[in-house]
Amino acid sequence: MITLEEAKKIIARELNALEIQGSPDELYEPIRYILSGEGKRIRPALTLLACSMYSEDVTPAILPAIGLEMFHTFTLVHDDIMDNASLRRNKETIHKRWNTNLAILAGDALFIKAYEKVMQCPPALFADIFWIFNHTALRVCEGQQYDMNFEQREEVGEDEYLKMIELKTAVLIGACLQIGALIGGAPKKDALTLYEFGRCIGIAFQLQDDLLDVYAQTQALGKETGKDIVANKKTYLLIKALQKARPDQLSRLKSWLSRKNFNPQEKITVITRLYDELRVADECKSLIEKYHAEARQYLHSLPVKEEKKEELLQFANQLKTRQF
Amino acid sequence: MITLEEAKKIIARELNALEIQGSPDELYEPIRYILSGEGKRIRPALTLLACSMYSEDVTPAILPAIGLEMFHTFTLVHDDIMDNASLRRNKETIHKRWNTNLAILAGDALFIKAYEKVMQCPPALFADIFWIFNHTALRVCEGQQYDMNFEQREEVGEDEYLKMIELKTAVLIGACLQIGALIGGAPKKDALTLYEFGRCIGIAFQLQDDLLDVYAQTQALGKETGKDIVANKKTYLLIKALQKARPDQLSRLKSWLSRKNFNPQEKITVITRLYDELRVADECKSLIEKYHAEARQYLHSLPVKEEKKEELLQFANQLKTRQF
Repeated sequence: MITLEEAKKIIARELNALEIQGSPDELYEPIRYILSGEGKRIRPALTLLACSMYSEDVTPAILPAIGLEMFHTFTLVHDDIMDNASLRRNKETIHKRWNTNLAILAGDALFIKAYEKVMQCPPALFADIFWIFNHTALRVCEGQQYDMNFEQREEVGEDEYLKMIELKTAVLIGACLQIGALIGGAPKKDALTLYEFGRCIGIAFQLQDDLLDVYAQTQALGKETGKDIVANKKTYLLIKALQKARPDQLSRLKSWLSRKNFNPQEKITVITRLYDELRVADECKSLIEKYHAEARQYLHSLPVKEEKKEELLQFANQLKTRQF
Repeated sequence: MITLEEAKKIIARELNALEIQGSPDELYEPIRYILSGEGKRIRPALTLLACSMYSEDVTPAILPAIGLEMFHTFTLVHDDIMDNASLRRNKETIHKRWNTNLAILAGDALFIKAYEKVMQCPPALFADIFWIFNHTALRVCEGQQYDMNFEQREEVGEDEYLKMIELKTAVLIGACLQIGALIGGAPKKDALTLYEFGRCIGIAFQLQDDLLDVYAQTQALGKETGKDIVANKKTYLLIKALQKARPDQLSRLKSWLSRKNFNPQEKITVITRLYDELRVADECKSLIEKYHAEARQYLHSLPVKEEKKEELLQFANQLKTRQF
């Protein structure tokens, strides 16, 4: 079985060697540009790891893994237009560097290339993998739509929020493991169990993101903390704070949420203090732990040798303790 | 064998009965909205016709045909954002009625639904149809990118232009026939011949569009004529006019192309007169006829009974003589 580090190396090598050529070059240049950015490449690495739990040879999983990373990157390209984001993977976003029209179209082309690579899988699995991928892609769009809806709303329920991050982030992480396992020769049931493991760590991953936006050391995150607070983003912390606040805290919180003109640093300080008073970080941490425990349960139930599970367990731990 | 009219009726019925449901509804409502517009629905009708040349039962081609119409509609949704178009199928475009972000995301979701429907094809053809569809989708994006590139350029060659409309419009029409034929049980070679037939009438169709923008009766077109002229769109007529103009005509033409402030009706009148002097409409018509002749050649070479070809021939004639 390969290690996570080995998986990441294979992915890096393959992405480097990938030839995204075609005419007109205006369409393909932004695709090469965004794929060469410094992504964490967690998803394709998980595909290889899951494959290697069932097969000594991960080669047949490489192109599908690359396709899954391309799909993830496509969603970032379009999401960044919608969020008007300027930076991605330490580079200017496509729509900033070129323009929105090109970002829409290059995104579409990248999506098609993602299908192309994912479907370069063993022929016997062609239909199964197609339907998993297709279904997952639609769920991710639904998650993004929920996220956009929530921006327009004053209050969002905890369950709704968890559903949104499940769709937007977690189902793809699950599908990456499921597809990798199938390519490795796993029984469908095992592949589904790995999907569930991935879904759980995916939700935990997103909750961790919410936490890090407020509590990460700036150096570790590589970007400013508190951006979610400034933007009134409905994170788990904000949802929980709105839920737990006493009347006086609630009015303080709502007054800051409704201000149009404010000093960002002051807003971050005040709201972080409210979060601290309400201990929402602790709630978030225990929810993260709950999802990790559930993930471990799924992994535990998997009928393969314990040593085969080590890398995934370690990977989950890395995610949980990550500082960025 | 079914007739074109029967094919169109089946498509209309199926599109009406189509349930595009899901959560959140914000994502699916624009998809239902745009699919219920009055499209010509040429593409899915061709899929059914091609199927019915080889099989009495067109049922297995219906969902793939709907998927191909969905794909075409997806390209319109994203193209309309890029062109900042306000109207589509006699309705407001999605990005005007809602907003650009929703149009991007609903477009993406519609694209995924298109894959989903296209792939509801006979299992034995699953891989073949996937690769045809995937390859075609990328070509269409390339065509759109060339079209955007041409907007930024002063001159475009005739060959480049023909290549662009082949990619943007014709390859999909070809693929619709090819996929339909395969589902009907056609040999691969026949399906490819029908692809070529579709490619040729697709190019002719687009050239006809250029012609109609200038020379259609306004009532027949259902919109103002001359929009391409006002926008300096590099149509076949303009490309040919730039090519054929004598020095005095060329300077008149270029002076109008470079004006920022002008009376649109005057520009239309002057440039149409130039087109008339240079007889570019005749050139366009003979090129259309050349592609139709080529299309007929392909159809002629098809080893099926002549009566099976009648509907496609008639369809091609309808396209050629259409006034809108």
